[in-house]
Amino acid sequence: MMHNHPQDSGTHYNASTDRMPRTTLFFSVHDMVGALDECLRALKRASVSMTRIESRPSKSVDPGYDFFVDVDAHTTELVQRVIEEVKKVKVVRDVRFVGNVEESAVVNEHAVPWFPRKVSDLDTFAEKVLEMGEELSSDHPGAKDPVYRRRRYDIVQKAKEYRTGQPLPRTDYTPEEKETWRQVYTRLREMYPKYACREFLHVFPLLEQNCGYGPDSIPQIEDISRFLKDCTGFTLRPVMGLLTPRDFLNSLAFRVFHSTQYIRHHSDPYYTPEPDCCHELMGHVPLFADPNFAELAQEIGLASLGASDEDIEKLATIFWFTAEFGLCREGGDVRAFGAGLLSSFGELEYALTEKPEKRTFDPSQAAVQKYPITQYQPVYFVADSFRDATSKLREFNSMMRRPFQVRYNPYTQSVEVLDTKDKVQHFARTIRNEMQLLASALEQL
Amino acid sequence: MMHNHPQDSGTHYNASTDRMPRTTLFFSVHDMVGALDECLRALKRASVSMTRIESRPSKSVDPGYDFFVDVDAHTTELVQRVIEEVKKVKVVRDVRFVGNVEESAVVNEHAVPWFPRKVSDLDTFAEKVLEMGEELSSDHPGAKDPVYRRRRYDIVQKAKEYRTGQPLPRTDYTPEEKETWRQVYTRLREMYPKYACREFLHVFPLLEQNCGYGPDSIPQIEDISRFLKDCTGFTLRPVMGLLTPRDFLNSLAFRVFHSTQYIRHHSDPYYTPEPDCCHELMGHVPLFADPNFAELAQEIGLASLGASDEDIEKLATIFWFTAEFGLCREGGDVRAFGAGLLSSFGELEYALTEKPEKRTFDPSQAAVQKYPITQYQPVYFVADSFRDATSKLREFNSMMRRPFQVRYNPYTQSVEVLDTKDKVQHFARTIRNEMQLLASALEQL
Amino acid sequence: MMHNHPQDSGTHYNASTDRMPRTTLFFSVHDMVGALDECLRALKRASVSMTRIESRPSKSVDPGYDFFVDVDAHTTELVQRVIEEVKKVKVVRDVRFVGNVEESAVVNEHAVPWFPRKVSDLDTFAEKVLEMGEELSSDHPGAKDPVYRRRRYDIVQKAKEYRTGQPLPRTDYTPEEKETWRQVYTRLREMYPKYACREFLHVFPLLEQNCGYGPDSIPQIEDISRFLKDCTGFTLRPVMGLLTPRDFLNSLAFRVFHSTQYIRHHSDPYYTPEPDCCHELMGHVPLFADPNFAELAQEIGLASLGASDEDIEKLATIFWFTAEFGLCREGGDVRAFGAGLLSSFGELEYALTEKPEKRTFDPSQAAVQKYPITQYQPVYFVADSFRDATSKLREFNSMMRRPFQVRYNPYTQSVEVLDTKDKVQHFARTIRNEMQLLASALEQL
Amino acid sequence: MMHNHPQDSGTHYNASTDRMPRTTLFFSVHDMVGALDECLRALKRASVSMTRIESRPSKSVDPGYDFFVDVDAHTTELVQRVIEEVKKVKVVRDVRFVGNVEESAVVNEHAVPWFPRKVSDLDTFAEKVLEMGEELSSDHPGAKDPVYRRRRYDIVQKAKEYRTGQPLPRTDYTPEEKETWRQVYTRLREMYPKYACREFLHVFPLLEQNCGYGPDSIPQIEDISRFLKDCTGFTLRPVMGLLTPRDFLNSLAFRVFHSTQYIRHHSDPYYTPEPDCCHELMGHVPLFADPNFAELAQEIGLASLGASDEDIEKLATIFWFTAEFGLCREGGDVRAFGAGLLSSFGELEYALTEKPEKRTFDPSQAAVQKYPITQYQPVYFVADSFRDATSKLREFNSMMRRPFQVRYNPYTQSVEVLDTKDKVQHFARTIRNEMQLLASALEQL
Repeated sequence: MMHNHPQDSGTHYNASTDRMPRTTLFFSVHDMVGALDECLRALKRASVSMTRIESRPSKSVDPGYDFFVDVDAHTTELVQRVIEEVKKVKVVRDVRFVGNVEESAVVNEHAVPWFPRKVSDLDTFAEKVLEMGEELSSDHPGAKDPVYRRRRYDIVQKAKEYRTGQPLPRTDYTPEEKETWRQVYTRLREMYPKYACREFLHVFPLLEQNCGYGPDSIPQIEDISRFLKDCTGFTLRPVMGLLTPRDFLNSLAFRVFHSTQYIRHHSDPYYTPEPDCCHELMGHVPLFADPNFAELAQEIGLASLGASDEDIEKLATIFWFTAEFGLCREGGDVRAFGAGLLSSFGELEYALTEKPEKRTFDPSQAAVQKYPITQYQPVYFVADSFRDATSKLREFNSMMRRPFQVRYNPYTQSVEVLDTKDKVQHFARTIRNEMQLLASALEQL
Repeated sequence: MMHNHPQDSGTHYNASTDRMPRTTLFFSVHDMVGALDECLRALKRASVSMTRIESRPSKSVDPGYDFFVDVDAHTTELVQRVIEEVKKVKVVRDVRFVGNVEESAVVNEHAVPWFPRKVSDLDTFAEKVLEMGEELSSDHPGAKDPVYRRRRYDIVQKAKEYRTGQPLPRTDYTPEEKETWRQVYTRLREMYPKYACREFLHVFPLLEQNCGYGPDSIPQIEDISRFLKDCTGFTLRPVMGLLTPRDFLNSLAFRVFHSTQYIRHHSDPYYTPEPDCCHELMGHVPLFADPNFAELAQEIGLASLGASDEDIEKLATIFWFTAEFGLCREGGDVRAFGAGLLSSFGELEYALTEKPEKRTFDPSQAAVQKYPITQYQPVYFVADSFRDATSKLREFNSMMRRPFQVRYNPYTQSVEVLDTKDKVQHFARTIRNEMQLLASALEQL
Repeated sequence: MMHNHPQDSGTHYNASTDRMPRTTLFFSVHDMVGALDECLRALKRASVSMTRIESRPSKSVDPGYDFFVDVDAHTTELVQRVIEEVKKVKVVRDVRFVGNVEESAVVNEHAVPWFPRKVSDLDTFAEKVLEMGEELSSDHPGAKDPVYRRRRYDIVQKAKEYRTGQPLPRTDYTPEEKETWRQVYTRLREMYPKYACREFLHVFPLLEQNCGYGPDSIPQIEDISRFLKDCTGFTLRPVMGLLTPRDFLNSLAFRVFHSTQYIRHHSDPYYTPEPDCCHELMGHVPLFADPNFAELAQEIGLASLGASDEDIEKLATIFWFTAEFGLCREGGDVRAFGAGLLSSFGELEYALTEKPEKRTFDPSQAAVQKYPITQYQPVYFVADSFRDATSKLREFNSMMRRPFQVRYNPYTQSVEVLDTKDKVQHFARTIRNEMQLLASALEQL
Repeated sequence: MMHNHPQDSGTHYNASTDRMPRTTLFFSVHDMVGALDECLRALKRASVSMTRIESRPSKSVDPGYDFFVDVDAHTTELVQRVIEEVKKVKVVRDVRFVGNVEESAVVNEHAVPWFPRKVSDLDTFAEKVLEMGEELSSDHPGAKDPVYRRRRYDIVQKAKEYRTGQPLPRTDYTPEEKETWRQVYTRLREMYPKYACREFLHVFPLLEQNCGYGPDSIPQIEDISRFLKDCTGFTLRPVMGLLTPRDFLNSLAFRVFHSTQYIRHHSDPYYTPEPDCCHELMGHVPLFADPNFAELAQEIGLASLGASDEDIEKLATIFWFTAEFGLCREGGDVRAFGAGLLSSFGELEYALTEKPEKRTFDPSQAAVQKYPITQYQPVYFVADSFRDATSKLREFNSMMRRPFQVRYNPYTQSVEVLDTKDKVQHFARTIRNEMQLLASALEQL
């Protein structure tokens, strides 16, 4: 779950140095004799503790190497020292870093907001959540319950420490938590056949069979993540709370969805002012198993990489009107596919009555539509199909005029910026090979 | 490493029931009300212990579900019982299984040899190795050393138990083993700058920096596998010994390489009658980090899925003359890229002299070239480049006239058979989207 | 020029039998021994005079033949006789005809309005013009001038007799006609640098150099047509008067533009109630030499083939708001590219003032916008570029849901309906070859 | 028909200045104010008579103009004067010419042999035939028959004068000529059902129905050319005699085939030392109506544009072993498709016996195979299908490493060199649009 409107929420980034002791440094070097060693010596000279030094065949300098270095430095000063040392090495190119300060990336000679290039770059989001991650706003039903707050703190600590490649943290839910889940699950499960879209209903029983979905147990995100991987390649990551819209959307480009693991306060099982595991697991998860929805979500994610703040807001709003509150046509009927609806029986019922306005989904309109966040939506958008929505979204994205194009490489789980002739050539060869395969497949059909 | 010529080796499959108590059953069902439950009830009726029941959105019946069931049955009779029960369910389609008996798959109305569809299907290879996996042939230097044989047994047990998704087993090598490695490593490392191809030399230092390569330690396959995943998406799997050529090649389709973890006998560090970790890690691993070589290897793998025995032999021979003993042109020079050469200083030196015959790589010739397995090769094939070799291989493969085409889905790590209009349509849409992206990238170049 | 709103104009089709003595019959036969001869015998049995019998390798039955037969029959009865005889031949398929009665075509099992398949099919439009072709409406300045009417009759007779492949008729214009042209030409020519779009201004001098454009002579359509063929493959055809929107748009699919050759009445050189050669040659011709505009025009044409009446009206309206009255953005400026503007100095000046409303071109809005035909437009649409307009148009067309797709073959100047696996396969191979060429071209860039 | 081995034949180019008074000059200019006028003034200053000045939107300078100027200059000196004047104009680029001296073209910074860019450039071949065009070698049966020689002279004069866009010359054959044709036609026609390939037999009856093929009349190339245009876009051009292999092959790139119109000497109807209309019309024409053969022929043509002399010889030899003496497999059978066979009953019969050697068609072998020109071939190549042969040819061509790629534009009948980013971008957009169309067609199949 992302936080859509930071400006409205009274929360703010809490990226103070004491909470973010780690900075990741990226740079590329030309493949020359001794280049690798020289870089290592430069890092050593900085005399700063480094928790990771990764070198890889470069994806931007050919032939060359890319370095990823985690600096365990508590002050900007220390980080600067490392950067200076690295920059002294002649063959080094493109020194960039993330950490205390978010720096722009340079793509195709344009400065653009920094964005993750490989799936492990998402680790840098782990601690960069909005306030709500650890502290509860005063209107939260659990705000004054120290036990609830302690429990919640314990759960998000594991999310904070999680890094790419590790098994996802399991939570041993308490009887009280399970009871809350049971109430929510039972009531929603009953409503789905009447309100949820076809794709949702197709997947839901699989979650019951494979991932422990049911009234009596809260499923574990590790089990769900493995299941989704098999279906569409989507995976889950634990998250402390609300990410910024940019970070949240960026991760969709990698087919990664950030999911909370804590649950709403038991005092009111039918209410939560923020996303919790009921919202994520009941509302969001099922559709990430659908190939067409997965494509739609990733398309939003890819468009968000390096996008301007203005475009991020548009994309976040499109996400709101699809993945959170989207409706779709099914024969003559209208059904819900948005997680905000499928995890709230009140609004689920309301949305499919005649009361709210329903418009045909058009990304350029949806992108600028105002919406309330604390009450039922007055306007919903109705997609013809996920595929049609994706196609329209693609057309919309092409008008954003971002000065570069990106392509996701699912083998290496990394994002490629198509900004050199080499990369475009390689891409053209890939399409040629696929076209050859398609032509052969057609012959044999 | 695969075993190329089972007919010559005196070894045989050891797939006796007591060693392979597990059978995997696959079937698909149409998405109808109650279909999932009915299947579960049918499985229960068979009263056989099942260690896994997975249901997924179907990749062949749309809309439908695919089932993967591990039956813990020691006799064919029990397995038959399960199958019969499952076949009673009306909506069930395409019941197939692997285990004691390898069954054909039905693709596009043709019976073809069974092949893995998802990466976890490779688990079924784990115990299906040739004899050599556990017992040593009489000419093996360690055949009469009970300590060596015990050590080796311990190592391959972990490979036998390994399943997809688990962390790869780590081995705590003994000082004696490390000494063997040190001797091999030191001598080969010295030779590489003069004999190895450019791509190999580019990657090797990265392995030293990231994966613990060096004279003093034997690197762990888990560390290497993570590194390769970042570079090309290739991963390693532990293996007990020699796989059949079909199984070995099939796994390359998933960008998976089976690697042994044991090491040759210390009595003769410069000789081994079979692949060991020196051969795999020094010879094979580096090039799996190169995108063009990775594509070449996967292309062989994809061609091997469901291929006839005759074609498997051809592809295995092509693998022999490329990945094992391939040479390539570099400017006016010739260099080695085959693992059989890069892990054997004797043949490495010999291969690049005038003594052996060198022919330009042509898959249709290489596929039928005879070769000795216990002495230096009399004939080598010289590729212009990995890319050129891949392109020729693709042309060669297109003449094999397999009655279906396959496509690898790296998101779900599964193989898709392009045998229905739906799948071909979906593929066409994918190419259309990529073509759109390519055109946009070209505008911005 | 087409007639946009037949319902408003008081004119009607004049397709009476005495004016249309010719009917064209199409049918396909399977390639079987004797099939060709049998068809010829059947045609002979009908005892009707036939002015053309063409047989070609079939584009729809493979292997087979397509027949095109011109029947010189004055009554429906005679035509029916021929059809009956032909239908008796067993191997005959898809008997269709055009002439007195317009018949539907059967495409992909759907009945759709008849449409031309090869460029020579446009010959069937030659006499099918609206009344205005030969008789003048009462408000025409030349309506009461018998000399003007006689002159006009002579000119359109040549258009009526013109058939594909012949040299286009030349007209020896009278001094009076030349004087009218001179006045129009001089005044418009002066205005262009300030009002016309970049592409128009780029081409205009070429017309002066190559095709006899100038104040003192009216250029000949044969010379223009050859020039356009070199630039974009567009060619001109003479026309008697207003075609129906369907016929007019259909011909654009073949990159054929129907042009009148007569000129407005000399009494008022700055007014004409109908298209004349000033409108066609000054307004329309220049942009048909621009590749991007040519693509836009053909795209409208291709969408119109076999379209429903409702969709024809939409496409005609889009044509109106682009090719007739379109504006486009150029840097911060707005310029004209529509022929209705570029051949009328009054409206050309007016359109680029602040008076009329200007909207960004959006085909779905333009398609349904009402417009007056006898006064200046209150609303204009402004395209970003021809390329952008074409891309939007393509998206719009894809939503028309015509039950088949067509592809133009410029080698044979024929339209292919992509409704069989064979044709789609062939198309896929073509794209594969092009993709191969593109990848190679990229390597060498 | 081309002349394959000029070096063996004793003939030589006869391109003396008195026979080639015309030179064509090409140049491009940037679109700047006054550029067109300045060029015209420069041409005038040269004071040389010019028979054509064409200006077109440039296909290489964007925005710009291309000029084509026919200079009626009898000496190199005069031509040089024009060139010098033109070069003085600042915005002029790429001045090249054809005429007395063949000049290299500059493509992509490489000097390559001149080649035609638009179909009318083929006019420059009209007088550039080898000696045999007008004079007969001593072993020609008609060499000493003055009436035959006079008749032949008259026929080739029309070919000499023919220019693109004109109707093809018709010949009123004499009774003696018709008798020769009758004898050849009757005998070959009888043999075809047994020896000719499927595609040839499919088309032949159409030629009889549409183009006047039959024992009693020699068909006219104008009628045939129109027929071929409808089938595949191929057209015929009259030719004086043997073209150089380069010119002959180059014209195939435009789907243009050069055909003689004269007939062999009546004294021996079953023998001719050179191509005549029996060879062209019986042997070559039918297959140009087959789409797959047309593609094969054009592919050879496209590869020949700007190719080195060495590669031209290879391509000419491939043409020899396909279009002239090719065999193909049909089920278990072998059939003839080469014109050299299908116009010679002696060799047609012989070729399909066991006597000659038959090899599977492989362009790299065929390209260097020696062959006799005055006796039956000892070796033939057997293609699997035209499509397969084309695919192999494409692979072969890709290895020629010509430093640029060309694409044929059938709308403008011109060749585009894909050597700028603009052109490659435009091509990529075209493929994207086609891919969109293919995907849509697949949905509706």
